[in-house]
Amino acid sequence: MNIGQYTFDEFIKKIKVFHGSIAPGIVAGGIMVDIARANLPQGEFFDVICESQHCLPDAVQLLTQCTIGNRWLKIVETSRYALTFYNKYTGEGIRVYLDAKKLQEWPAIKAWFLKEKPKKDQDEQQILDEFRGAGTSIYSMAKVTVKSLYITSPGKKRSGISLCPSCGEAYRTDLGGTCPACKGNGPYL
Amino acid sequence: MNIGQYTFDEFIKKIKVFHGSIAPGIVAGGIMVDIARANLPQGEFFDVICESQHCLPDAVQLLTQCTIGNRWLKIVETSRYALTFYNKYTGEGIRVYLDAKKLQEWPAIKAWFLKEKPKKDQDEQQILDEFRGAGTSIYSMAKVTVKSLYITSPGKKRSGISLCPSCGEAYRTDLGGTCPACKGNGPYL
Repeated sequence: MNIGQYTFDEFIKKIKVFHGSIAPGIVAGGIMVDIARANLPQGEFFDVICESQHCLPDAVQLLTQCTIGNRWLKIVETSRYALTFYNKYTGEGIRVYLDAKKLQEWPAIKAWFLKEKPKKDQDEQQILDEFRGAGTSIYSMAKVTVKSLYITSPGKKRSGISLCPSCGEAYRTDLGGTCPACKGNGPYL
Repeated sequence: MNIGQYTFDEFIKKIKVFHGSIAPGIVAGGIMVDIARANLPQGEFFDVICESQHCLPDAVQLLTQCTIGNRWLKIVETSRYALTFYNKYTGEGIRVYLDAKKLQEWPAIKAWFLKEKPKKDQDEQQILDEFRGAGTSIYSMAKVTVKSLYITSPGKKRSGISLCPSCGEAYRTDLGGTCPACKGNGPYL
């Protein structure tokens, strides 16, 4: 089977280079990307939501032009292993998820996905072989409409930039009189 | 000048392929990655925090093995154009930021960074030429310690997985009796 523009084995190599290890979740994610794309209207621009930050976003970044840095990829953490490709103006899209109810015949995937065994006792090669064998049969999908929060309004103005009077660094003016870090919401002690 | 393992021009091409456009912010981000790395203890593993989701994370993903999907890259949005490379166990690290106070001699970068002109009136080539000319002179850095929230505790247990009694999908058990989406915190209408 192919995943995106790659053969299965080529995609495994791409994962290793980008992600640093052959995470089974990215293999699943790649197949989910293909399912979503095959069920979208042709020629439309889309944004993507991943419902988990584990692995899944890297599948999207490897196979599409949606990245976290161009913000066509968004993460809305529900911890479910699901992604949604949607029209960025209407919010209508296709949600695809790895379906735990379809894993009876795939013990290695099931043990990995539901964390039935510690990682050290899992057989990576068997998991990959099962993903190849299962093809698209272990995923489910549904039409969804995303909340307006995630929709692009063509006329929406972007905030200006000011220098924070406290730290002196540039920040988004619409966030208030000082930058979020100087309000105590930065990542540092 | 080089950026990471690339020449300046090679890096521009990499940006175009991954990010979809030649965003000046990724050029700045690439130089910031190099500054951070040059000032870290050799041979240490590090995690990265980006303080802005705009462009900066894609520089990190292009030049390091820290990605959003392997979670060695974290985004803590303060809207400041800064990134921090830090020891994931001690939290000690180097924060690098594009310093608005050092832009007097670089009018195109200043106009872009402080949004002094609409995007259509900015000269992309001049911005890139100024980034090349300015080298590392327009950034500042400081030693920081990140909050414990962003530090890896070696003994930390990861949550188990359950099937949500409401939607039937797998989710992280430590998030409560149903998944976050079924509590109303999902991205869909």
